[in-house]
Amino acid sequence: MRMYDLIEKKKLGKELSTEEIYEIINGYTNDEIPDYQISALLMAICFNGMSVRERYDLTMAMRDSGDILDLSSIDGVKIDKHSTGGVGDKVTLVLGPIIASIGVPVAKMSGRGLGHTGGTIDKLEAFPGFNVALSEEEFINQVNKIKIAVTGQSKNLAPADKKLYALRDVTATVDEVSLITGSIMSKKLAAGTDAIVLDVTVGDGAFMKNKDSALELAHSMVDIGKRADKKIAAVLTNMDEPLGFAVGNNLEVIEAINALQGKGPEDLMEVVYALGSQMIVFSGIETDKAKAKALMEKAIEDGSAYNKFIEFIEAQGGDSSFAKDINKFKPAEHIIPVCANEDGYVHALKAESFGLASMSLGGGRETFDDVIDMSVGIVLNKKVGDEIKSGEPICYIHANDLNKAKKAEDMIRNATVIAKDNCGHMQLILDIVE
Amino acid sequence: MRMYDLIEKKKLGKELSTEEIYEIINGYTNDEIPDYQISALLMAICFNGMSVRERYDLTMAMRDSGDILDLSSIDGVKIDKHSTGGVGDKVTLVLGPIIASIGVPVAKMSGRGLGHTGGTIDKLEAFPGFNVALSEEEFINQVNKIKIAVTGQSKNLAPADKKLYALRDVTATVDEVSLITGSIMSKKLAAGTDAIVLDVTVGDGAFMKNKDSALELAHSMVDIGKRADKKIAAVLTNMDEPLGFAVGNNLEVIEAINALQGKGPEDLMEVVYALGSQMIVFSGIETDKAKAKALMEKAIEDGSAYNKFIEFIEAQGGDSSFAKDINKFKPAEHIIPVCANEDGYVHALKAESFGLASMSLGGGRETFDDVIDMSVGIVLNKKVGDEIKSGEPICYIHANDLNKAKKAEDMIRNATVIAKDNCGHMQLILDIVE
Repeated sequence: MRMYDLIEKKKLGKELSTEEIYEIINGYTNDEIPDYQISALLMAICFNGMSVRERYDLTMAMRDSGDILDLSSIDGVKIDKHSTGGVGDKVTLVLGPIIASIGVPVAKMSGRGLGHTGGTIDKLEAFPGFNVALSEEEFINQVNKIKIAVTGQSKNLAPADKKLYALRDVTATVDEVSLITGSIMSKKLAAGTDAIVLDVTVGDGAFMKNKDSALELAHSMVDIGKRADKKIAAVLTNMDEPLGFAVGNNLEVIEAINALQGKGPEDLMEVVYALGSQMIVFSGIETDKAKAKALMEKAIEDGSAYNKFIEFIEAQGGDSSFAKDINKFKPAEHIIPVCANEDGYVHALKAESFGLASMSLGGGRETFDDVIDMSVGIVLNKKVGDEIKSGEPICYIHANDLNKAKKAEDMIRNATVIAKDNCGHMQLILDIVE
Repeated sequence: MRMYDLIEKKKLGKELSTEEIYEIINGYTNDEIPDYQISALLMAICFNGMSVRERYDLTMAMRDSGDILDLSSIDGVKIDKHSTGGVGDKVTLVLGPIIASIGVPVAKMSGRGLGHTGGTIDKLEAFPGFNVALSEEEFINQVNKIKIAVTGQSKNLAPADKKLYALRDVTATVDEVSLITGSIMSKKLAAGTDAIVLDVTVGDGAFMKNKDSALELAHSMVDIGKRADKKIAAVLTNMDEPLGFAVGNNLEVIEAINALQGKGPEDLMEVVYALGSQMIVFSGIETDKAKAKALMEKAIEDGSAYNKFIEFIEAQGGDSSFAKDINKFKPAEHIIPVCANEDGYVHALKAESFGLASMSLGGGRETFDDVIDMSVGIVLNKKVGDEIKSGEPICYIHANDLNKAKKAEDMIRNATVIAKDNCGHMQLILDIVE
């Protein structure tokens, strides 16, 4: 009867108390409350929402459902960066070494990719021998020593979120802002950093399809982070088209290496600078964002960012010769141009479809059991706003299977819009919430 | 993914198609769709409701999930009567024999009581030997022969409702009008009669606590019945105080026998006449309700209703000597008056509490496994609007356990309001929807 009353309370639009929220989260984590009662509650939350106080309690109860990392033995202000997911998103690979080279400790837990979005851990495995499963001690020691470590999740962080997410995923209760906030922030708070910078992606290839909903989520997460005494900011970035030119694991790693050597695509670098300058300000190394950005530009120019990347790959046992000679990455068997049939300007390169096309080539997972083909993917030749002539390539498909390439081409053609008028480039940084 | 999309559709407030509703109901009945998806859908329905077309499809899909009775071999217009539940509700015991004696075929499936409301099947078992489990053939033959048979549910009628109701009962999704409509009407339509008269109770002891929600439910059920080509009407009756004076199994049977002999409480008879005249009009025996009521009064006066009751009890193997001499019913050991402590008028006798008090004496079930004590209950001495003097009994508790009697007395005192001003009697028939 108790759980019944709590469902009814939320259904009637009333606030659940702190104690009640902990009771629900603990009861569900311990298998004492059945799925069917939680899913009814989740749906009631989709309609009636949660107050900021309830969201905070939800986040903390989920955080407290498992281990909480203690990073206090790392010197300096520890900063986490989190993206709500995108296509062609290799930001961490570029951003991490840059700010680590400036002295900001980067202690990052990353995940694997699922669906149309990739994961940093998968990309790092492009370097043979790279260890994505550091012990807590190795992780902390490495950050203290070289200021950067990236590992998969080893400890039992926020197990309540794992159960809740799996249930939300099959009951159409994924897209509610309090629940998303609890899911993301519980893991971020369990990861134990002092500051958090969020990349909230917006648009076709993102979880939040429009700016209003992304802004609502950004404010919600920032509110909760502040309540939990964290330094926190969110940058809203456009994900209507893929970020940079490359989509696919090795292809994105190569683009990241180029970016660290000063040859990064403009849009990718704009996101890297926006997030990184915020992180440097949080670290206390610089108080002015423009000056922080200048520090980052200098780190690329003088080679310290690239060198930090090499050091980082080697520290985790990876073969850094691949970073020194990108031709060592095994290419796909076929590189097939997809060409325009008309003159005009590129109006849309729908990001989700490019992500799905890359996945269909073998570059992503439909389920966590799938094995990724590291060499396949897509490299754009044009971005939205670029002029294009009939016969000029829109992009190149990197494939190991011609049937899959054909399917990917169809998806790409459906996702590409070319029209006569000059539409201009997309605005990339849509807002900053801090 | 399919069920996910259907949950999402209802969450967005869109209409589910006929095919989709059948898919959901069939999938759930066959255990192909898990509880946690259905409970999320049910909660979405609580917020977004269902159109009349969706309600109809829901009702029909639930009806079609099991057996549908074929009563075509019974002569005349077969009529079912259904109450949404009340305290002291012995209407079927009085109404059935009266209209059967007039020639209306009464082919009624009844249930057992649960919680604070009683059930007709339990009450009929007051007559030793009474068979509440007729075969379909026995049931039909008896209605053809003596115009009345009452049996428990033997066939597998609307199994989807059994599963759905059990789930709604633990997920706070009980009180939504489309779901209630589907639950009640699917069983009524599966029971195969030509006409249905609904007693929609309103107030403290009823499922619907106020007139607006009861009226909404009544309209919903009547709409669905008409779509299914049934003659149907709903009478809204007040259930703020118990109906009649007796609450408890034998006590209610005795009150019903008295009523069939012309000694029925005014309020009970008002409900019996309102429902019965509607049923007689549906049967085609009479077209005018006032004339139909006169037929009923005559059936009581000339003894034919009472004689029909005796015939009915005997036809189902019951010992009718109890109906001829009510002193044969075993009385409770203790009959304890609960007296007023002040002069005034009775303003409230909260029906639900009286039902729960009777249950706590042993007269009702908390779960379907509980065994009922037939002799216990409560007999009112006053009704709302009656004048009462200090020291005068409000009611008498019939108990076999003095500790339980004390507990029941406390409940009754908390449920009784006496005040100085003359508040008048309650209006009993609140509305008729046809």
